[in-house]
Amino acid sequence: MMQLGVCYYPEHWPESQWQSDARRMVELGMTHVRIAEFAWSRMEPRQGEYDWAWLDRAIDVLAAAGLKIVLGTPTAAPPYWLCKAMPQIMAVRADGKPWRFGSRRHYDLFSADYRRECARITTAMVERYGQHPAVVAWQTDNELACHDTVPSYSDEAKVAFQGWLAAKYGDINKLNTAWGNVFWSMEYPTFEAVDFPVQTPTDANPSHLLDFRRFLSDEVIAFHQLQADILRQHAPGRDVLHNFMGLFGAFDHYQFAKNGIDVAAWDSYPLARTETQALPEEEKARWARTGHPDISAFSHDLYRGVGRGRFWIMEQQAGPVNWAPHNPVPAPGMVRLWAWEALAHGAELVSWFRWRQAPFAQEQLHSGLNLPSDGFSPSGEESLRVGKELRQFPATASKAKAPVAMMFDYESLWYCDIQRHGASFDYQLHLLAWYSALRQLGLDIDILPRDADFTGYALIVAPTLTVADLPLVEKVSKSDALWLFGPRTGSRTRDFHIPATLPPGPLQAVMPIQVLEVESLRPSLRPQTRIAGQAGAAERWRENVRPMGEVEVLARFEDNWPALLRKGHVQYATAWFEPALLKHWLAECALEAGLEITHLGAGQRLSRRGDVTFAFNYDAQVWLAPVPMDAELLLGKAELGQGELCAWRE
Amino acid sequence: MMQLGVCYYPEHWPESQWQSDARRMVELGMTHVRIAEFAWSRMEPRQGEYDWAWLDRAIDVLAAAGLKIVLGTPTAAPPYWLCKAMPQIMAVRADGKPWRFGSRRHYDLFSADYRRECARITTAMVERYGQHPAVVAWQTDNELACHDTVPSYSDEAKVAFQGWLAAKYGDINKLNTAWGNVFWSMEYPTFEAVDFPVQTPTDANPSHLLDFRRFLSDEVIAFHQLQADILRQHAPGRDVLHNFMGLFGAFDHYQFAKNGIDVAAWDSYPLARTETQALPEEEKARWARTGHPDISAFSHDLYRGVGRGRFWIMEQQAGPVNWAPHNPVPAPGMVRLWAWEALAHGAELVSWFRWRQAPFAQEQLHSGLNLPSDGFSPSGEESLRVGKELRQFPATASKAKAPVAMMFDYESLWYCDIQRHGASFDYQLHLLAWYSALRQLGLDIDILPRDADFTGYALIVAPTLTVADLPLVEKVSKSDALWLFGPRTGSRTRDFHIPATLPPGPLQAVMPIQVLEVESLRPSLRPQTRIAGQAGAAERWRENVRPMGEVEVLARFEDNWPALLRKGHVQYATAWFEPALLKHWLAECALEAGLEITHLGAGQRLSRRGDVTFAFNYDAQVWLAPVPMDAELLLGKAELGQGELCAWRE
Amino acid sequence: MMQLGVCYYPEHWPESQWQSDARRMVELGMTHVRIAEFAWSRMEPRQGEYDWAWLDRAIDVLAAAGLKIVLGTPTAAPPYWLCKAMPQIMAVRADGKPWRFGSRRHYDLFSADYRRECARITTAMVERYGQHPAVVAWQTDNELACHDTVPSYSDEAKVAFQGWLAAKYGDINKLNTAWGNVFWSMEYPTFEAVDFPVQTPTDANPSHLLDFRRFLSDEVIAFHQLQADILRQHAPGRDVLHNFMGLFGAFDHYQFAKNGIDVAAWDSYPLARTETQALPEEEKARWARTGHPDISAFSHDLYRGVGRGRFWIMEQQAGPVNWAPHNPVPAPGMVRLWAWEALAHGAELVSWFRWRQAPFAQEQLHSGLNLPSDGFSPSGEESLRVGKELRQFPATASKAKAPVAMMFDYESLWYCDIQRHGASFDYQLHLLAWYSALRQLGLDIDILPRDADFTGYALIVAPTLTVADLPLVEKVSKSDALWLFGPRTGSRTRDFHIPATLPPGPLQAVMPIQVLEVESLRPSLRPQTRIAGQAGAAERWRENVRPMGEVEVLARFEDNWPALLRKGHVQYATAWFEPALLKHWLAECALEAGLEITHLGAGQRLSRRGDVTFAFNYDAQVWLAPVPMDAELLLGKAELGQGELCAWRE
Repeated sequence: MMQLGVCYYPEHWPESQWQSDARRMVELGMTHVRIAEFAWSRMEPRQGEYDWAWLDRAIDVLAAAGLKIVLGTPTAAPPYWLCKAMPQIMAVRADGKPWRFGSRRHYDLFSADYRRECARITTAMVERYGQHPAVVAWQTDNELACHDTVPSYSDEAKVAFQGWLAAKYGDINKLNTAWGNVFWSMEYPTFEAVDFPVQTPTDANPSHLLDFRRFLSDEVIAFHQLQADILRQHAPGRDVLHNFMGLFGAFDHYQFAKNGIDVAAWDSYPLARTETQALPEEEKARWARTGHPDISAFSHDLYRGVGRGRFWIMEQQAGPVNWAPHNPVPAPGMVRLWAWEALAHGAELVSWFRWRQAPFAQEQLHSGLNLPSDGFSPSGEESLRVGKELRQFPATASKAKAPVAMMFDYESLWYCDIQRHGASFDYQLHLLAWYSALRQLGLDIDILPRDADFTGYALIVAPTLTVADLPLVEKVSKSDALWLFGPRTGSRTRDFHIPATLPPGPLQAVMPIQVLEVESLRPSLRPQTRIAGQAGAAERWRENVRPMGEVEVLARFEDNWPALLRKGHVQYATAWFEPALLKHWLAECALEAGLEITHLGAGQRLSRRGDVTFAFNYDAQVWLAPVPMDAELLLGKAELGQGELCAWRE
Repeated sequence: MMQLGVCYYPEHWPESQWQSDARRMVELGMTHVRIAEFAWSRMEPRQGEYDWAWLDRAIDVLAAAGLKIVLGTPTAAPPYWLCKAMPQIMAVRADGKPWRFGSRRHYDLFSADYRRECARITTAMVERYGQHPAVVAWQTDNELACHDTVPSYSDEAKVAFQGWLAAKYGDINKLNTAWGNVFWSMEYPTFEAVDFPVQTPTDANPSHLLDFRRFLSDEVIAFHQLQADILRQHAPGRDVLHNFMGLFGAFDHYQFAKNGIDVAAWDSYPLARTETQALPEEEKARWARTGHPDISAFSHDLYRGVGRGRFWIMEQQAGPVNWAPHNPVPAPGMVRLWAWEALAHGAELVSWFRWRQAPFAQEQLHSGLNLPSDGFSPSGEESLRVGKELRQFPATASKAKAPVAMMFDYESLWYCDIQRHGASFDYQLHLLAWYSALRQLGLDIDILPRDADFTGYALIVAPTLTVADLPLVEKVSKSDALWLFGPRTGSRTRDFHIPATLPPGPLQAVMPIQVLEVESLRPSLRPQTRIAGQAGAAERWRENVRPMGEVEVLARFEDNWPALLRKGHVQYATAWFEPALLKHWLAECALEAGLEITHLGAGQRLSRRGDVTFAFNYDAQVWLAPVPMDAELLLGKAELGQGELCAWRE
Repeated sequence: MMQLGVCYYPEHWPESQWQSDARRMVELGMTHVRIAEFAWSRMEPRQGEYDWAWLDRAIDVLAAAGLKIVLGTPTAAPPYWLCKAMPQIMAVRADGKPWRFGSRRHYDLFSADYRRECARITTAMVERYGQHPAVVAWQTDNELACHDTVPSYSDEAKVAFQGWLAAKYGDINKLNTAWGNVFWSMEYPTFEAVDFPVQTPTDANPSHLLDFRRFLSDEVIAFHQLQADILRQHAPGRDVLHNFMGLFGAFDHYQFAKNGIDVAAWDSYPLARTETQALPEEEKARWARTGHPDISAFSHDLYRGVGRGRFWIMEQQAGPVNWAPHNPVPAPGMVRLWAWEALAHGAELVSWFRWRQAPFAQEQLHSGLNLPSDGFSPSGEESLRVGKELRQFPATASKAKAPVAMMFDYESLWYCDIQRHGASFDYQLHLLAWYSALRQLGLDIDILPRDADFTGYALIVAPTLTVADLPLVEKVSKSDALWLFGPRTGSRTRDFHIPATLPPGPLQAVMPIQVLEVESLRPSLRPQTRIAGQAGAAERWRENVRPMGEVEVLARFEDNWPALLRKGHVQYATAWFEPALLKHWLAECALEAGLEITHLGAGQRLSRRGDVTFAFNYDAQVWLAPVPMDAELLLGKAELGQGELCAWRE
């Protein structure tokens, strides 16, 4: 499926406008519309007084036009009367003060009362619309974790954390041992003694922080699951989903998805994401109007894995937004390109945010397909074109298994967050760097959890996998694919200890080395090495490694410490390599793994879906896409200016 | 009138020194002295126990020397006993904690009790000195809003805010509609439900923020007005004033002035202001010892408008100060130049801060005309020279109406503060850029409120005027002057909505365009255009505009979006232009408006008062001022080194 | 004595490992081992239940191996049960919230209850081990002031502060006068009225801040002294010490040492200290793997003075650490070099932190001599070499009196902290700059307090000594050494007033000048001068000085203000000179003082102990150390690569 949709807020507009809106959506080629996810104050204006009439009519109008509806539960923004009646549902900041009412996400997700209220409104809503033929999917809440709203430092949350720890460890002495609390006399007599790991005079214990992250993740999942279960009960056969954000790591999305969703949906804002991510300034400058060429693709490939093959774009950027430090207008063509790119990466649905820019309130400078005065915005014109193109585009199979698998691991992200060691070590940036290098070789990538089935992949990469456990090691040893591990892999146990045999711990079974010491590199420190003829530097992170036994040192730094080690079909990179060096090494590896590579520039990308290949040009220079002589051009032409794309079938 | 004065703190010095101080002030040519504005603890050492004796004697000594006295009410620094007796008068920080005693401006201006205390001390003071023949003017408080002390997050302030909203909207549903509270279910059932728009998990509603800014402004004005009314009642015929700061926008100075003051006085610190303003680093470096050539002049012209022609410098920098990140000594001549510059811009009085540098407490490194050990400081020597020169200077009329009017609008400042969209969009910097360009063309400028009478001006500019209302549009359409509008003009309604017809809203009657989308530009994004032959870039902000009907596109950006539009005598700039481009365009416009322009360098300025023209050189290079052949040189000579000035009459 | 030691945490390791650890320490050549300073939760697992058994055994094992033991009191980390039983012992943050349990240094040192508990555990510990023959020294607490933990904003601390003020001033009017509280009506009626000088809307009174700093310093000293007195009573003949940190200025170490310690011990972490200090970026880059060549030496020379000749390194960096923004691995040789450097500067003992890297908790990435898996780390190998070398090294006398004395004054540091005036004025950086210049002339330096005996020094320098009092002036006038004073010397009275005769106040008796005004210089302002033929600039700070009487102006700035003044054997520098200029001037002065100088590069240093001269090379280039022809080479060779050293006896 390759379908289009849009986010719509009937409550923002006069009812008289709904019909023409619905008609124009359909004309544009849209099949789906998401509504209602912030409308609690309209569904239940006063405690217990439901007003469904307006929503009934909105659904009727949209359904009558032939649109499929995604309904959102409104729990991301509890209305005033609820916050007033139950002040205990307001989340508490680290300074002990509750957040104030007047925006969104002010609720405490650890509040039993709030969960009860969420269950109530969700039940009421799904009892009314769960069987409606036009309502094909349900979204819970909205962008969980956005604005850093997962933690709440309320007493209720603290008790829940203590309970979580008690359930995990059973005996407080086990916790004390696991956390190494003998250090600095941090030993606790009971679980009730454990506080939040914040506002300590110096660093809290990393094991304490890690368990807190795990607890938070579990609670976010439980918060969602409560609604998901209700929705499934009352709306059988409908897709349940939540709209994730790109590069959010506050909870384990794989765990979240396991029982919680039918399709992974995410909200894609390439420009603001590029501007706010910790990318080098020259990258931000270069891609200011296009977004970094991998910033969305990375999440597409990640969420395709999270959704076990099924993913949607629930909100797709449609013009300039309002929430980055600077918010430029996208380069011409990008709104179209982003939509096609998502589809090329396997999206079933691309749904733009939003139908029409609201002229009031917080997001008035967040554009839409239509101007506040109605009529298409410049970006809206591009969406029209996508609609037309898609109508003529042949049916395309799902995205096939890629030749390369990359491991993304939320726990590794938390370990690295808690213990950056160097200010510049960012887990997601590290993965993005590897991803980008591989994508510049023309390769498709599946991003997968550590416990995935990796059979069938020719090249499997783990830029950092903090805990290397025995099941993984077994997979590696039984595999004949090429496995590449990056620094910090196997560097910790699940309790956040350095492994007794030193890093990479259990991975030593297939990569017999010992990491003796690690260093974080200030920007001025750039140890030099040479890999397969290519000179280059380490940045940000390096490890001093001692080879054990039969391991081969493929490259060394000037000071003789190994840069790259190999044993059979396993390689270990001891450092964060600068981009050109990384790309060169990965190209060598891809060739060794028997993969066909295409050297692309920084701004060109290829992506395959079914038997169709797509080519995208983010760059200012014109690019002649590698369309084979005998290929059938399905879209565009081979010569691509900035923001252009083509697609062909061989 | 062109007079000199000084700020003096008799309570800081032994009484034995007062007489010689007074004598030396008069010798220097001073006519005015401001005293008493921080002396509450000396006027009323214990609750209800007044001690006027020392102040009687101080006033007597100064008056006997022939000085006119400006008396300040001491309410900027309530003494300890008052704060102890009434803890509710301490302002509350956003985190809910009251400020601590031990500096100044710790009071809560929303406190009814504190206002009562202010009325009491003011009444007591003015009953005693209101009719004193030497007391010619009264200042209320000191630098209202300094140190960001307007808001207080006390319960009393909250109730006042709710009352203000109730008075404005009458019906809570009107507020909900005006603010667009349907967005994110932010609807309130009552006015009592509305909280401060701070400490929300993400952005508060901009309409909420704007009403809060308006409320704060009204309250500052009311706080002052209470004292002003008492002063006027008991001190008839005396000038009432408050000492404003340069570039402070926490309250609407025009509204403040309307019934509140007789003369606009302000405190001018060019070096610290240049260092702390968000100017580009190269500007800060270039003008570190002189101050930016427009930083004071801009406020002179603004406050002349605020005072409807009458303005004073209540505090003029006299040497290095202590409150910027770095505090250099002014270049030789600058203390003299700044004084003459203020007079050239129409000041009736220039009063230095302060007579003598106090060797103790917070401002011990804030210099004065005299050293702590007594005797003139290096800057004091320059004040001596000003005194001598002024004695020989012919009587000069007031500043005449300038050929150019610029609109400064406090509400526009608040809109832009609340919704910068791009980190680099600063309303005052934007106006300063236009002001600076016009002043480098040798033009005098009147800075005026939106509701001023603009008849008689040849060129009227509004770099940004967020709300373009019908009265203004009517003025434009009836005028035959040249009107220039900059970006973001007409971009919002008074409720902080995007106008229904898109920006510039009602201005479309005279400038028929629609702003389709806006972008904030990171420093690396510089769209290129060409205006009247001059190539240049947009910076910080750009709008994508659709011309409607008969509008003429005078310039386009490389990507074809209009840069400059014209219809008849109205032009609209769609972007923040880089300085050279802006100056070039404004020069063209000035010529078209029939104005005579003089191309000046970055550091040279001309200013006319009555029939006298002054020339000032801020620059390191020597400048030959354009003194006409037949002019009568009143001061200095045409060849001007840095920090030098001359004046002539034609 | 030149001895080696190590920090050891038996409680972190299985008891079975203790014996081999002890054996290997001795093999390495260690004589000392420090233990127990964080083990309160193991010494007293529950209130009043002591468990000494494990510590008895640990001491026995170490003593049996021949090691001398330094025992630490565990008061830096009160265990949970104590914090629970006495919540009033938790320190309070400026926002009024107590710190949370879960790291270290969470206690309120102003808490009488906590002091009682500290006395109790110290007494219990020293009663048990005070007479143990192997326990040769006692350390109190750990790194007092670390993590900025001196202040606590508790009510108990406030009452203590008020009491301290009452004791100092007796009469509140004296305080009001001393602080200049007439300014801004800050006068207090009683001592109970005085609050903490924080969270005021703008700057608190500098006199208030200074007395608060003095109070905090006194309290830290009293906190330590309480334990020191108990230790001395029960452990007669043992050394009492505390492990200071480098460049910590929260308390007056000279006062601390006066009755509090027998030897000054400090913790030396050259890399993290270089990274975190406010050094210029190019210096941080250059010395990232070696540490700045003076960063440790400066503290060696300071603490040798604090300890009246006796100092130890209690913790010496042994490989990469974890607490700077970036944490590189030291360059090869540095772990050895740092140890020898400390010994060359007179250390009796160099004790590495730590024997073995713990694989758990907060400092798991803080390396040790041994890997977590046991076996020497790369740095451990270097310690082995030091052990071997030291065994063969001849007995060496203590460090002799140096030819140069530099005054370091904690009160001056506080004055400058409180009143930087310019963001870039850092007292310690200023002293370090002078120190570095002198050390690049090959000179040894004694760093001494203002009240030291300076007889016998040829050159005495005070880069900044804020208060110049009469005893000092008397010393200067009676001396025939060359005295050099830098800017801000004599600039304040003890009450934080500008002296009545202007700065340098009483120093005018020997340096008759007046500082008329001062300026802090933004980086772009660099006034030029020329000293003894060398052109150069002032940076950060300059004073405009008027010579009085017979003073000679040795150098002037371009604008004619004096740069350097001289009267007889006293010189006064009016500015912070850039490094090359400073070095050139100091070289001239050293020659004039009759000292022999050796021009060294930025990375080479000489240090003399007894009759032995050591040479150290921090630089990447090879350096031929100035070993005299007839010298006896005791260690290494004259040609030194980076991280190498040699030593010789003439």
